Amino acid sequence: MSYLPIQQLLKTAQIGTDVTVKGWVRTKRESKNAVFIALNDGSTINNIQVVAEAGQLPEETLKLITTGACLSVTGQLVASQGAGQAIEVKISAVTIYGPADPDKYPLQPKRHSLEFLREIAHLRPRTNTFSAILRIRHALAFAVHKYFNDNGFFYLNTPIITASDAEGAGEMFRVTTLDATKPPLTEEGNVDYSQDFFGRETNLTVSGQLEGELGALALGKIYTFGPTFRAENSNTTRHLAEFWMIEPEVAFNDLEDNMNLAEDFVKTVIRYALQHCADDLAFLDNRLKEEEKTKKKEEQSELGLLEKLQFVISNEFVRLTYTDAVEILVNSKPAKKGQFQYEVSWGVDLQSEHERYLVEKHFKKPVILTNYPRAIKAFYMKLDEESSTTPGQTVRAMDVLFPGIGEIIGGSQREDDFDKLVARMHEVGIEPEALWWYLDTRRFGSAPHAGFGLGFERLVLFVTGMGNIRDVIPFPRAPKTAEF
Amino acid sequence: MSYLPIQQLLKTAQIGTDVTVKGWVRTKRESKNAVFIALNDGSTINNIQVVAEAGQLPEETLKLITTGACLSVTGQLVASQGAGQAIEVKISAVTIYGPADPDKYPLQPKRHSLEFLREIAHLRPRTNTFSAILRIRHALAFAVHKYFNDNGFFYLNTPIITASDAEGAGEMFRVTTLDATKPPLTEEGNVDYSQDFFGRETNLTVSGQLEGELGALALGKIYTFGPTFRAENSNTTRHLAEFWMIEPEVAFNDLEDNMNLAEDFVKTVIRYALQHCADDLAFLDNRLKEEEKTKKKEEQSELGLLEKLQFVISNEFVRLTYTDAVEILVNSKPAKKGQFQYEVSWGVDLQSEHERYLVEKHFKKPVILTNYPRAIKAFYMKLDEESSTTPGQTVRAMDVLFPGIGEIIGGSQREDDFDKLVARMHEVGIEPEALWWYLDTRRFGSAPHAGFGLGFERLVLFVTGMGNIRDVIPFPRAPKTAEF
Repeated sequence: MSYLPIQQLLKTAQIGTDVTVKGWVRTKRESKNAVFIALNDGSTINNIQVVAEAGQLPEETLKLITTGACLSVTGQLVASQGAGQAIEVKISAVTIYGPADPDKYPLQPKRHSLEFLREIAHLRPRTNTFSAILRIRHALAFAVHKYFNDNGFFYLNTPIITASDAEGAGEMFRVTTLDATKPPLTEEGNVDYSQDFFGRETNLTVSGQLEGELGALALGKIYTFGPTFRAENSNTTRHLAEFWMIEPEVAFNDLEDNMNLAEDFVKTVIRYALQHCADDLAFLDNRLKEEEKTKKKEEQSELGLLEKLQFVISNEFVRLTYTDAVEILVNSKPAKKGQFQYEVSWGVDLQSEHERYLVEKHFKKPVILTNYPRAIKAFYMKLDEESSTTPGQTVRAMDVLFPGIGEIIGGSQREDDFDKLVARMHEVGIEPEALWWYLDTRRFGSAPHAGFGLGFERLVLFVTGMGNIRDVIPFPRAPKTAEF
Repeated sequence: MSYLPIQQLLKTAQIGTDVTVKGWVRTKRESKNAVFIALNDGSTINNIQVVAEAGQLPEETLKLITTGACLSVTGQLVASQGAGQAIEVKISAVTIYGPADPDKYPLQPKRHSLEFLREIAHLRPRTNTFSAILRIRHALAFAVHKYFNDNGFFYLNTPIITASDAEGAGEMFRVTTLDATKPPLTEEGNVDYSQDFFGRETNLTVSGQLEGELGALALGKIYTFGPTFRAENSNTTRHLAEFWMIEPEVAFNDLEDNMNLAEDFVKTVIRYALQHCADDLAFLDNRLKEEEKTKKKEEQSELGLLEKLQFVISNEFVRLTYTDAVEILVNSKPAKKGQFQYEVSWGVDLQSEHERYLVEKHFKKPVILTNYPRAIKAFYMKLDEESSTTPGQTVRAMDVLFPGIGEIIGGSQREDDFDKLVARMHEVGIEPEALWWYLDTRRFGSAPHAGFGLGFERLVLFVTGMGNIRDVIPFPRAPKTAEF
């Protein structure tokens, strides 16, 4: 029995034709003359209404048509008499694939808290909010691949299990097949990892960047898009133990090119979502408006979700150095009135409150900060030249800051000089031997190059307007959380 | 200094214009009158020739222009005098970004063995063979996303770290942050995983299918495309400890729909590669022909690489049941002459030699085998109906078999009946409680559905004609192998 997904049916529907629709019951409503069933198959936020005359369906069938039940319905597509939909299906036959006992099915047609839905993450994609989020997540992921493919980048799958522990991007998870209770030990009493699966200690990757650089210095333009891991015990609305990261890396790009790429990239994928997810975004825009109404006036955001997305794609990002940003912050009203929780001075890592002040109050635009102090950035970032205003003190780093969310992208031009890179490694306590393969790219055919990383869930969080990062990934992983 | 990647330059080149090209030296050749440098930037298998007059470049510059060095060259695009290329660049200025000491750089312009290149996987993307493989790998990955996006599927990121160990697809890697030497123990002397990061024992996923089914029974059509892991101690040319898997799952599909999807999918992505990777495939086709020449006549394959790809996209896949296949095999010449290493009879798992006989000798077409004995297939596959020829004995499984490679896709219609599924779990020793969330999809709004899995590296292996799976992933992970 061939049938069309509801998304296609609503677009191509021809009144008067016979159709089959399949999906899950969202609501059932009975009037004196008829039964109205809202059916959704996940292809769109929009339901299709299927209608039976009163008495048409046997009582035992009708009893099984409850919220969550899965049906196949055949009938004629007709213009709807009721408000809220243009067309509906006049039922001629119903098959019940699977009922959903209303006494046990947890998703009833009422408002469930996001906390509750997190506990039933295996079922929450059946709700309007989460199906909208997942469709938008898909569209954004596709837009990412499309953007890079259109622009001559090659997708590079960097390793997930890695023996390299020198990146310093965060705490790592150990990957092992050794006996957990009685691991083999060396004579010194340490675990003998030579007997482990890989013959050495291995961990889950925190970033594909270093391997990405190998790729860029061979293929020119590459990007990664894969899972990365942080074993940090942080139970916040902004952190996950497992998240997806996008990391483009481009040979011959400098910091300026890198900024241009980041701005064009993030605008293009947001524009794609606006074009391809209009219904889902309208739903979430409305959801956010309702939520905002429950807040105090002064805590409500100035912009709605759609306005915020338009704001980002239609404004040129402000670009300024860290040094200039610190000056603005030091002279700002909140600094003078002592309203910042953390004090600002040249050399400190900016806090979220500072980033948000710059974006939301001072410039009222997305901001790219550059040329950060070397002491607060990673070893692989290129030192600023003698000709810069802060020679040797700063690195060619960039952070892209967004309203509401703070840092969404972090990147840099990379140090391509072998000697300077080795010196920096010594400075931060990394053994050059441990990264011999990384250094080989500077030893042989080195080239200027630059790249950045964007946490995919941060992007989805921004585009969906959700408040907790655990709500924008299907099955969140966090401390004490690994269900499903 | 704006410049074009060589791939674009070769396509859009206008004789007489000034251009800048950047890339790595593949070869340098000096004649009496000129120096010819073949430059490659990874954007294409094709080099651009840059030419200096004899004496034009200072000796110290010329000395640094060796295989592997990275250059930026500016000059006029002219019609080439020599054979082998239509255009070349007449050098007016050269910048050497990074030299490559010919006494130390391991990639010299000669034939390196694949074994040697595996040891320098960080540099091998700079070779013709591996850059071609990686560009094709990219094109196939993009074709996968494009196919599913075009057909209304949503990309679902199923979890990498999982507490579920009931899938039975293979040995797993443990993920932990516990002290390796002195893990906390329970009173019984077992490791106390309640103190581990996730509060329980966790592993790397072997498949996203079970979570994929949750997605399909909410969003209709989903697919996964992410890393999966097997801790099996198999050092073969067909196995990796870390590999990328593609797993579509579709609500309302039966076995027939599943076969149609698999055939259309794999043909579409191979067709995409043929259309978008013509130069790289021609190179690998030629590479394979050279390799075949070194083999004995009887070991040479009948088809070249391009012919094999054409063969797959232009033939309808043969579909037959396992039962019929066993009958063919039992009555085959090799069976009667005792030439199969493993004997065939109804109920055994078919070996590679049997699959290849069916595909390469008997049908001479890709084959889809269906309705396998339940005893050799996974618990979640749908039992065949009473109406089938083997009621209750077989399941609605399918394996797609390809020439040379054997099984490339495995899938099934899923058991959607709660009671039958629970009975099968008991049968194979899985505690239903451990998969309560999976069973919930059958408890609430169950629906017919089907899906399959395709190991991405198997596909890349097939399309590139390579012989070892470690050569089609950038950084292979295998027993005792986790470099880079």
